[in-house]
Amino acid sequence: MQDLIPTIAPLAQLNPAGLAGALRQRIDQKTKPLGALGRLEELMLRLGLILGNETPELQQPQLVVFAADHGLAARGVSAYPSDVTWQMVENFLAGGAAVSVLARQHGLALTVVDAGVRHEFAPRPGLVIAKIAAGTADALEEPAMTAEQCAAAITAGRKLLGRLPGNALLLGEMGIGNTSAASLLLARLGGQAVASCVGRGTGLDDEQLARKTQILAQVLERHAQAATPLQALAAFGGFEIAMMVGAVLQAAQERRVVVVDGFIASAAVLVAAQLQPAVLERCIFTHQSGEPGHRLMLQALQAHALLDLGLRLGEGSGAALAWPLLVSACRILCEMASFASAGVSERD
Amino acid sequence: MQDLIPTIAPLAQLNPAGLAGALRQRIDQKTKPLGALGRLEELMLRLGLILGNETPELQQPQLVVFAADHGLAARGVSAYPSDVTWQMVENFLAGGAAVSVLARQHGLALTVVDAGVRHEFAPRPGLVIAKIAAGTADALEEPAMTAEQCAAAITAGRKLLGRLPGNALLLGEMGIGNTSAASLLLARLGGQAVASCVGRGTGLDDEQLARKTQILAQVLERHAQAATPLQALAAFGGFEIAMMVGAVLQAAQERRVVVVDGFIASAAVLVAAQLQPAVLERCIFTHQSGEPGHRLMLQALQAHALLDLGLRLGEGSGAALAWPLLVSACRILCEMASFASAGVSERD
Repeated sequence: MQDLIPTIAPLAQLNPAGLAGALRQRIDQKTKPLGALGRLEELMLRLGLILGNETPELQQPQLVVFAADHGLAARGVSAYPSDVTWQMVENFLAGGAAVSVLARQHGLALTVVDAGVRHEFAPRPGLVIAKIAAGTADALEEPAMTAEQCAAAITAGRKLLGRLPGNALLLGEMGIGNTSAASLLLARLGGQAVASCVGRGTGLDDEQLARKTQILAQVLERHAQAATPLQALAAFGGFEIAMMVGAVLQAAQERRVVVVDGFIASAAVLVAAQLQPAVLERCIFTHQSGEPGHRLMLQALQAHALLDLGLRLGEGSGAALAWPLLVSACRILCEMASFASAGVSERD
Repeated sequence: MQDLIPTIAPLAQLNPAGLAGALRQRIDQKTKPLGALGRLEELMLRLGLILGNETPELQQPQLVVFAADHGLAARGVSAYPSDVTWQMVENFLAGGAAVSVLARQHGLALTVVDAGVRHEFAPRPGLVIAKIAAGTADALEEPAMTAEQCAAAITAGRKLLGRLPGNALLLGEMGIGNTSAASLLLARLGGQAVASCVGRGTGLDDEQLARKTQILAQVLERHAQAATPLQALAAFGGFEIAMMVGAVLQAAQERRVVVVDGFIASAAVLVAAQLQPAVLERCIFTHQSGEPGHRLMLQALQAHALLDLGLRLGEGSGAALAWPLLVSACRILCEMASFASAGVSERD
């Protein structure tokens, strides 16, 4: 299946000619005690490295919400019916969802992508129809997608991203059943026991959670041979995750900042990073989800998220909430005075 | 000394006619799984209660940086010389400090208050000169301030706040030596061992930290009789903390949102809350400081901060960084669709 994916060009070196050292020096000369801005200083360093200069500016940030349906949802792995996927797409486009509100607040361009929703949408501004199929197949019976569908979704994600302006991609997603796909990817690609990868998603009770865990264990067994990242992605789905994989690979190649939301978006990054480990240097993990598997996922990615607010909504809502911290990091790098420029005494 | 403080009027009931229930219902009907916005939902509830309606709007937020010098600084409790206090005030006013950058980013009105800096400032816009004295006295020898000075500082803080517009106060401070004052207040009013209240402040090494701890232990012993909140405040200082106490009391009485920064601002809230416990309902704690005593301080206040980024800069920088989360909470309450209004199916 690797053959079906366009070759991934090697990623550029993020630290040409000692940029990291120059950034560190610039940060340390700001009018503050050494290290006093804590993890915001790491963020400054990373943004400077990704964007390739000491005074990085985030431009035309794109929040892209990839939506698709999951065949496995018919097995009762979600508290909500599959129709909620298309209904929420309508809600995003009408401006009523959490992510719509946050995108307006922060001036983020919001694009919703039909990656494979079981519904026919009327075309309109802000909606990209790139449907691979009307939902994935039931992964308990067969692979969620064929190798061709998986490759087509990745390619579509790459092309779509390539057409968007700006230097930052915020990942969002919507798909009833997609915490199951993310849990399966984590279990297989992260080598974790399924029970520690599964959570309540949109709000399962204890009994439903036990059933979800049992179903996911069966799916893993059914696809025991799906060992590579692309095989696992095809086996478990979904189209929105595969399209995010493509978007992440493309964004990393174009040296955009990849602003990662919660559990599902991180699953896409997990796949992308196993195809091309250097994408991780281009990622900012914005929040630690309330979905329990996310902690393991971030550990597998050696990432430490900016926020820990118990969010478990998806849509890119956590990425959008954390966005002003990225802007602050850049503005502080660009605008804050140094001890010398402000005439402030250094330490005794 | 209580006599010197104008009477604190009883605070209004925050939950008249079941506002909390109405807010909870409004939050639960938004198009998201129950509780999926995590701690942002608690923030929505609190902001709605403070501002007294189901669609709260934050208006004309005021970031006030209270600055003063500390007599104890001459004992070597800080890594920086006292001159940095006035130099940083100049930096705030020139727009070069971290908090200046963040205030610009978020449209926060920035006011710097000379509460007792050892320097004569030229008057200019954005600077309020309300100097109680040119720095506090050395608390190792005598109380940092007299009872009259302490009362005057609290009153000045109240008056100053009363003249500012808007419904939100973000607390900031600057004062070389003021982590010592905050540690002393925590030790005395929070009943904590001094060693667990002391930290490296602007960057002490191990030896300097040991000396700071020893000096603070001596100061506590010297003022063993200073047991009430106001006695402790007068004994340990500083003028900027006392003025913040007044501003917090006034803001709470006017039902403004009190947006609390880190260790020093929290020390002012600790004093204010012991004078009038209901102020805590009006406070949002924005971040968990890297200064180790802050964890104990937040425990004493039964507070859980929004961010945990290892910040230890003060100035109100953490309050300003977290500000967009408060705006998001209000905007989601006001603008996000309900299941009914968006035509989204509820759970199975």
